[in-house]
Amino acid sequence: MPASIRVCLVGAGRVAKVHANSLVRHVPLAKLTSLVDTDPEVLNETADQFGIEQRFESLEDALSGAAFEAVVITTPTFVHKTMAVSAAKAGKHIFLEKPMALDLEECDEIIDAVNANGVFIQMGFMRRFDPEFEAAGERIEAGEIGRPMMIKSLTHGPGLPPPWARDLKTSNGNLAEVNSHDWDTTRWLMNSDPERVYVEVANFKGEARGVKTENFYDNSLVNIRFESGGLGSISGICPCDYGYDARVEIVGEKGIMQIGQMQGQAITLGVNRKEGLVTPIFRTWPERFAWAYIREMEHFVESVLTQTPPKVGADEGRWAVAGVLAGTRSFLEERPVYLSEVLGES
Amino acid sequence: MPASIRVCLVGAGRVAKVHANSLVRHVPLAKLTSLVDTDPEVLNETADQFGIEQRFESLEDALSGAAFEAVVITTPTFVHKTMAVSAAKAGKHIFLEKPMALDLEECDEIIDAVNANGVFIQMGFMRRFDPEFEAAGERIEAGEIGRPMMIKSLTHGPGLPPPWARDLKTSNGNLAEVNSHDWDTTRWLMNSDPERVYVEVANFKGEARGVKTENFYDNSLVNIRFESGGLGSISGICPCDYGYDARVEIVGEKGIMQIGQMQGQAITLGVNRKEGLVTPIFRTWPERFAWAYIREMEHFVESVLTQTPPKVGADEGRWAVAGVLAGTRSFLEERPVYLSEVLGES
Amino acid sequence: MPASIRVCLVGAGRVAKVHANSLVRHVPLAKLTSLVDTDPEVLNETADQFGIEQRFESLEDALSGAAFEAVVITTPTFVHKTMAVSAAKAGKHIFLEKPMALDLEECDEIIDAVNANGVFIQMGFMRRFDPEFEAAGERIEAGEIGRPMMIKSLTHGPGLPPPWARDLKTSNGNLAEVNSHDWDTTRWLMNSDPERVYVEVANFKGEARGVKTENFYDNSLVNIRFESGGLGSISGICPCDYGYDARVEIVGEKGIMQIGQMQGQAITLGVNRKEGLVTPIFRTWPERFAWAYIREMEHFVESVLTQTPPKVGADEGRWAVAGVLAGTRSFLEERPVYLSEVLGES
Amino acid sequence: MPASIRVCLVGAGRVAKVHANSLVRHVPLAKLTSLVDTDPEVLNETADQFGIEQRFESLEDALSGAAFEAVVITTPTFVHKTMAVSAAKAGKHIFLEKPMALDLEECDEIIDAVNANGVFIQMGFMRRFDPEFEAAGERIEAGEIGRPMMIKSLTHGPGLPPPWARDLKTSNGNLAEVNSHDWDTTRWLMNSDPERVYVEVANFKGEARGVKTENFYDNSLVNIRFESGGLGSISGICPCDYGYDARVEIVGEKGIMQIGQMQGQAITLGVNRKEGLVTPIFRTWPERFAWAYIREMEHFVESVLTQTPPKVGADEGRWAVAGVLAGTRSFLEERPVYLSEVLGES
Repeated sequence: MPASIRVCLVGAGRVAKVHANSLVRHVPLAKLTSLVDTDPEVLNETADQFGIEQRFESLEDALSGAAFEAVVITTPTFVHKTMAVSAAKAGKHIFLEKPMALDLEECDEIIDAVNANGVFIQMGFMRRFDPEFEAAGERIEAGEIGRPMMIKSLTHGPGLPPPWARDLKTSNGNLAEVNSHDWDTTRWLMNSDPERVYVEVANFKGEARGVKTENFYDNSLVNIRFESGGLGSISGICPCDYGYDARVEIVGEKGIMQIGQMQGQAITLGVNRKEGLVTPIFRTWPERFAWAYIREMEHFVESVLTQTPPKVGADEGRWAVAGVLAGTRSFLEERPVYLSEVLGES
Repeated sequence: MPASIRVCLVGAGRVAKVHANSLVRHVPLAKLTSLVDTDPEVLNETADQFGIEQRFESLEDALSGAAFEAVVITTPTFVHKTMAVSAAKAGKHIFLEKPMALDLEECDEIIDAVNANGVFIQMGFMRRFDPEFEAAGERIEAGEIGRPMMIKSLTHGPGLPPPWARDLKTSNGNLAEVNSHDWDTTRWLMNSDPERVYVEVANFKGEARGVKTENFYDNSLVNIRFESGGLGSISGICPCDYGYDARVEIVGEKGIMQIGQMQGQAITLGVNRKEGLVTPIFRTWPERFAWAYIREMEHFVESVLTQTPPKVGADEGRWAVAGVLAGTRSFLEERPVYLSEVLGES
Repeated sequence: MPASIRVCLVGAGRVAKVHANSLVRHVPLAKLTSLVDTDPEVLNETADQFGIEQRFESLEDALSGAAFEAVVITTPTFVHKTMAVSAAKAGKHIFLEKPMALDLEECDEIIDAVNANGVFIQMGFMRRFDPEFEAAGERIEAGEIGRPMMIKSLTHGPGLPPPWARDLKTSNGNLAEVNSHDWDTTRWLMNSDPERVYVEVANFKGEARGVKTENFYDNSLVNIRFESGGLGSISGICPCDYGYDARVEIVGEKGIMQIGQMQGQAITLGVNRKEGLVTPIFRTWPERFAWAYIREMEHFVESVLTQTPPKVGADEGRWAVAGVLAGTRSFLEERPVYLSEVLGES
Repeated sequence: MPASIRVCLVGAGRVAKVHANSLVRHVPLAKLTSLVDTDPEVLNETADQFGIEQRFESLEDALSGAAFEAVVITTPTFVHKTMAVSAAKAGKHIFLEKPMALDLEECDEIIDAVNANGVFIQMGFMRRFDPEFEAAGERIEAGEIGRPMMIKSLTHGPGLPPPWARDLKTSNGNLAEVNSHDWDTTRWLMNSDPERVYVEVANFKGEARGVKTENFYDNSLVNIRFESGGLGSISGICPCDYGYDARVEIVGEKGIMQIGQMQGQAITLGVNRKEGLVTPIFRTWPERFAWAYIREMEHFVESVLTQTPPKVGADEGRWAVAGVLAGTRSFLEERPVYLSEVLGES
């Protein structure tokens, strides 16, 4: 196997910096050699911060102007398909941030391009690489809680998403941008595909923050029936303001398992008898999932180096998109929607 | 005000013993003087255990054969209406276990009888008297979490309910028998009435335990939209086997509050390095809500003695029944059901 | 056995109110008929609050002027001996608040009077009746952690003790007033008598609060070697300001057990992302040990009614006093002190 | 500044592997080029595992046969002085595992060699680099708990130490091998030097495990009085079997702070109603202090590259040794020992 791979990072924003940090500081088998961003200022700031020399304003320029084996795509969702297909056609292995794409047609275009060009694709479902989620998944699979009956997964994020990420047209809104991980986690841990979903949404904070996007919602509550007969709930709140919160509770025939907690650092302070005890909360997703981000990138690099398919790929990405589409239709049409209604269209 | 009141306990089963214990040991202003049960064996066992002298096999016998000011009704749901109306007509104040009745017509008959006879009725929503729920309710009302956006309330009970309590015809099933408290709690803490509900149910353990009741379910997941625009979830699992579990999580515009926990006694044991740390779980509802049961009975007795209406009465009971009816229709008809559909019938 | 016993409460201050509350509201087999306090104002306020009719300014007056079977003594330590001996000589059963007395001579006078008059004495070591401490004790005795090797017990109290309780001459200071429970708990759970002790003390807050008492200390740290070879630590801080804190950690050959926690109500609030999560702390000892206070009084009343010796009596009280005396000598003489040095004098 | 530094790792055992992992995978500015161990088998196994090419059976061979800027010394304590002095004389910067040395004379020899040769020395007190301990230290320094009054620090390790590490002659026993971190942590967080110490020890498990070393102890309890007047406790248990346990509790004039917890992964399992809830415990020190080991090595490498003295050096190492020596004398002579007695000798 080669000693290392060269990576081109596509998109230079917030999550790109998280991946750059992993690649530069914690994954010695990868060399982060190229960076792409359409905004020269963002491009140079991130490239300077991580010492990346080759800088491009488009993926096309990078593909023609630099040599690398893999891309890490962190652009907004609405260009995921274009980026991924271009990279696949150029023979590059692909790490693709969630959500996979805007709809199932786009997912299928990506899948076709990946298959046609013999490259790997790993979806950025980092929770699968979080030591706690991973251990929990293994323990559930080993039967510790028995056959899963009911799962609840939540993601509450602190800040208002950017405009493109709260518009159904460019992102599918919070069900996709905030809760993609939950769609994947619930299907993974229940070991069953969703059969139908029902969704309620609410908009509490939009007006006060000047959000005028049509159909904007900041609260969503998903009810899932799985093929197995099991039940599921996904809760999304963004902006929640109080911290970054990602937890799962799953009940099987034998018992219950809780994964994750709100408490961040194990420091407890008691200085106000009336108020009580204070512990830190996780403030951001990079803090909560520090090891998950490192470990998913290690996995991707090792997959490429050893020519082994990554353990979370296009199929997982496509199912999460299908859930989002069914869920969106549910709250728009105010009725339960079967996944088959959505999957049948593609 | 009189020095104390005499109480007749109607029904001598499990929850009756909990109330008898409260009355005899912890509410000195009450005298538990009479006990009613149709089963002479159960009647005598409970009466002996708590030293109750006057024993009757029907409420009618008790009403004619003994003197008391109040009844505590703990019979199965399907006779709640008959018992409560009889007691009201006899001028007795009423403490009525949840759920209030089988349908809204029964609720209204009780309400009419109570109003016509000038007696008080308190519903057995003991969570309102739990020190933690009560303090949380006051803090939410004081604005600590801001305007409530989303609530999740769960009740998971350890053992299989008795046959009458799992048959929709005699009890409305787990949505009523297990989750009546959650219907009340969510409405109370959200400070808003439910507008529509959607429910998924599942039956995982019935077959293995020989349950053949039509429409039996042991898992249920309720999705609520409140008049305020807020969202809610109620989860019910019974039998869950792992313990007795009753918790609430509520998010407002300012932040999150969690009420209750699974951990019972604050004893942590670490003797198995591979397994980890072990703490007790609440095993039963009398253990989890020990003070709530005492305090709700204190409140009832004080209400009667001071001639002040109890703070949780027929209106709260009726709303919980309405939620159950809408929820049951939802899973039977596989669609969201508006509360107005149910309330309009009564 | 008689239907109930009559109780005379001696001392009408803070802990007296806790016991009065237990007797009046939660121990129906006791009748709190008499109250004694030298201060008429305190006497009447407490008697009014709990509806006690017979009121006396001295125990002598009560003994001659009222009929009762038992006394509950809650006076300052320096009159414990006088009160207990008088009560014993009058044939009254005795519940005696900790610490038992100022020195071992006084303990022995009490023991002689109790034995000579055939009455029972129960020491107010309520932690033995706390459901968590009691369950932990049973589990340790059952071998769950193996042979005990090391115990740490702490009591940190919120407020400045009254003058008599911080003066070595009238109370033996915090080692007695705050930590008597820890002396008893460590001996009980280690199942071994202390062999020698070493104590360091500190005075951090006295000056700022105007305390000029000689040898005053507000922090103490006790190191114990038990006869079994096991080790122990007792920590006392009073005033600690941040809450009421009483916890034990014990390690045996098999593992560790923690008893108690700082968290009070199970309510978690997250509204400040920077600060984190907030839970209530126990604010006072009556809140932390609510059931312990009720259950120790139940035990005392049942012991008298059934003529069974209470399970925590003069021997436990005397050992705690011995520990306090050895500990005090240790920090005054700046050396480890053997219990035999103290016990040999008596 | 140079692009990176070359490091020679001296000693190839358990903690060496932890540092090798940090250097190879997480500190890209370091190149781990050489490894030294007297045991060829251990040498080659560790070198193979981490891809280290230059291998030597003595530091002298490495110094003459390879080029590097820094050493990381992980040998047994009794050769620390020899290794550190040799490295210093050769102009190498030094990362030295705790404890610094066997006695203060050895410490001073190291300090003299370091000073004479203008190299840096960083002590392996990784807790200072643990994100939780570090944040807590900053918060205490910022005054969150007020002036520190009392600290308790514990280290309980799971397994029996190797023979040299339990013999006072070659290691000073558990007070040094297990509790060196606690000596440093208590002095750091109390912001004061220890003035006198008193120590009790016990030997519970030695016999059953065939340990015949003179003066062997597996339990120790240290009582400290600091120059500030504050008090401290250090507890050491090894082997404790139940997990790896390192926690601090510190009380200041304003309140209490707890640092660290026993719980490892945030996974809670409830499948046994009788037993309760189970969460993982930290099993090993590399698991508990994963980030601390990475961050201390980052700090060392950055210190060398930027020519800035490390923030934890010889002075901290020497104070910890002084505490160990005073503590050992205390339990041997069964009396409190002033640090001045030990420091005056050097």
